[in-house]
Amino acid sequence: MAGIEKALERQRTLMASDEYQSHMKRALIEAKRAGAFGEVPVGAVIVSPEGKLLAVSGNRTREFKDPTAHAEMVAIRTACEVLSSERLVGCDLYVTLEPCAMCAAAISFARLRRLYYGTADLKGGAVEHGPRFYSQPTCHHAPELYPGLFEQEAADLLRRFFQQRR
Amino acid sequence: MAGIEKALERQRTLMASDEYQSHMKRALIEAKRAGAFGEVPVGAVIVSPEGKLLAVSGNRTREFKDPTAHAEMVAIRTACEVLSSERLVGCDLYVTLEPCAMCAAAISFARLRRLYYGTADLKGGAVEHGPRFYSQPTCHHAPELYPGLFEQEAADLLRRFFQQRR
Repeated sequence: MAGIEKALERQRTLMASDEYQSHMKRALIEAKRAGAFGEVPVGAVIVSPEGKLLAVSGNRTREFKDPTAHAEMVAIRTACEVLSSERLVGCDLYVTLEPCAMCAAAISFARLRRLYYGTADLKGGAVEHGPRFYSQPTCHHAPELYPGLFEQEAADLLRRFFQQRR
Repeated sequence: MAGIEKALERQRTLMASDEYQSHMKRALIEAKRAGAFGEVPVGAVIVSPEGKLLAVSGNRTREFKDPTAHAEMVAIRTACEVLSSERLVGCDLYVTLEPCAMCAAAISFARLRRLYYGTADLKGGAVEHGPRFYSQPTCHHAPELYPGLFEQEAADLLRRFFQQRR
């Protein structure tokens, strides 16, 4: 219970923080932009330990014709290029949707400090669902998790996108 | 039991096939080359439905300073570029080591038909170990699996590499 209380306290502090809100809002803008280009509307942002924006990306699987070009993957690769390092120690990732197994593992390999995400992904998520990657004995680094923030906005974007495609 | 018998039969047929052997040998050469450049020695090859070599890569995480540049990922991205498609339907991937969660999911997203791999990865594998990605309800496409082929050669490469680094 002490762990849950601590997590809830952290979340309350964060929700009141302008910095947090601006990064997740930026991820939502990227998600919207991706949707406008026919990509599944998911957006991601990576921030340095000093609060500097290192990378911003939406899903780009269609544009790049690359099944690995999820928003988180493109953002991680960009941030690594910016820092000229294969580790993003102390950096935080904001993404509008619960990461899949590919992205959850890449976040772990990059040693990202915190993972903020919007809405849960029942069908493809790998944090709270399916493989629950960060709880596996084969996971050697897990970020601090901040799920469910701006959840409604992120979920609405996805729902509208898939409704229009039906 | 019928399933296992069928898998063993498939494996026996394959082991006798020159084509299969040459692709896995090529993956082993790429693994060796990666090791010579200080990368963890893992190699991967992707072959088209017609048996044409589409992509060949070793691990390149250090060279590219990119934690996502596992051999399988680089090979998938290259093959998608070659075919100008985000799906590799009917294509097969040969890799010297059991894929991790990131690569297992990318293989699924790319709709690869068959996954041949060398040695099991107890610490980081996600096919037989940890997340067992292809058995999860959140996995929407699983390749046909051919594990344990050229197992000894692939394992020897890794063992020698890590012994030299101690």
